[in-house]
Amino acid sequence: MKFFHKDSFDVKTKGFNDIIDVTGEVISILKKSQINNGALNVFVVGSTVGVTTIEYEEGALSDFKEAFDRVAPMDAFYAHNQRWGDGNGFSHIRAAILGPSLSVPFSKNLIELGTWQQIVLVDFDNRPRNREVIVSIHG
Amino acid sequence: MKFFHKDSFDVKTKGFNDIIDVTGEVISILKKSQINNGALNVFVVGSTVGVTTIEYEEGALSDFKEAFDRVAPMDAFYAHNQRWGDGNGFSHIRAAILGPSLSVPFSKNLIELGTWQQIVLVDFDNRPRNREVIVSIHG
Amino acid sequence: MKFFHKDSFDVKTKGFNDIIDVTGEVISILKKSQINNGALNVFVVGSTVGVTTIEYEEGALSDFKEAFDRVAPMDAFYAHNQRWGDGNGFSHIRAAILGPSLSVPFSKNLIELGTWQQIVLVDFDNRPRNREVIVSIHG
Repeated sequence: MKFFHKDSFDVKTKGFNDIIDVTGEVISILKKSQINNGALNVFVVGSTVGVTTIEYEEGALSDFKEAFDRVAPMDAFYAHNQRWGDGNGFSHIRAAILGPSLSVPFSKNLIELGTWQQIVLVDFDNRPRNREVIVSIHG
Repeated sequence: MKFFHKDSFDVKTKGFNDIIDVTGEVISILKKSQINNGALNVFVVGSTVGVTTIEYEEGALSDFKEAFDRVAPMDAFYAHNQRWGDGNGFSHIRAAILGPSLSVPFSKNLIELGTWQQIVLVDFDNRPRNREVIVSIHG
Repeated sequence: MKFFHKDSFDVKTKGFNDIIDVTGEVISILKKSQINNGALNVFVVGSTVGVTTIEYEEGALSDFKEAFDRVAPMDAFYAHNQRWGDGNGFSHIRAAILGPSLSVPFSKNLIELGTWQQIVLVDFDNRPRNREVIVSIHG
């Protein structure tokens, strides 16, 4: 009987609030683990990227970007930009608010998400990035 | 010595930012688990609902709704609504920002929340819903 | 072979969105655990404080505060303040949105954060506080 399994995968993004559905990759790692019952953690490495769940349809994805345009507008003043000149101050703030980690339970080796609930990575950076997602499974 | 326990319960909500204190249900599952020391994960199934902790008093609950009225106003334009006509675009965005999962440690079979810190489910949908909350306990 | 370790530490804060880098304390507890591979949970006790990851540099820390000034301004009306008179209504709302918990994987007893990604406690309260941070490590 196994109790712990960990694996990771890479995701290429376009940046600028690019939202990528990673549910398939997470489920694939869960299947391979052969752990029946437990909870898994999805973590994305980096300070300008986050994870959450959302209904993965174009309308909601675009609305999600609109909300972050209210919370941390791209064209607001950012002290980070003034100091470092990389122009991604908004990306850091959005990522810190959303957070880099998410935990989801599973039973009978099946993930317990809702039908319209997908696990997504949101890349807030201002350029294309290659991201590492780490899945830790505890039975 | 047991290391893992999982259970779930249902919550009836009114929707529209209905905030339900589920601390009692979570503690009850923890007690039954007889696991002394570890961390538990609270997960809510669905893409228009989230979990967090808050001081469960009427003022804070009403203020919480006000903040989400700023971030994702009910009467803003939502591409989701235009495509699907179900009018709950704001619900999806609020839920994706808050997130569906939360982890809390426990010691001596007692949950380690602050005195004024309760575990809550927030139903952002635009109608009453029946929600499933899954509690995964790892010792 | 060990599978679970838990420890905690205290952090003195100034309140008012004081952001404290606790990565060093978390890594120190991880080292002591001698668990090689797994995920750890960082939880902060209290309803006016949260945890997340951010690039810990002055610019981003100041920008982070600005974003929460948009979402839950200090000078907005808060029903919580009207009822309790403690003036920290904004603190409760910010903390509930950010959340009190975060999970991070580790391999070979090393935490898997990005180079510019630090674990931080954000104290939103309107006065100095002493906070307890609990680290639960599962191998």
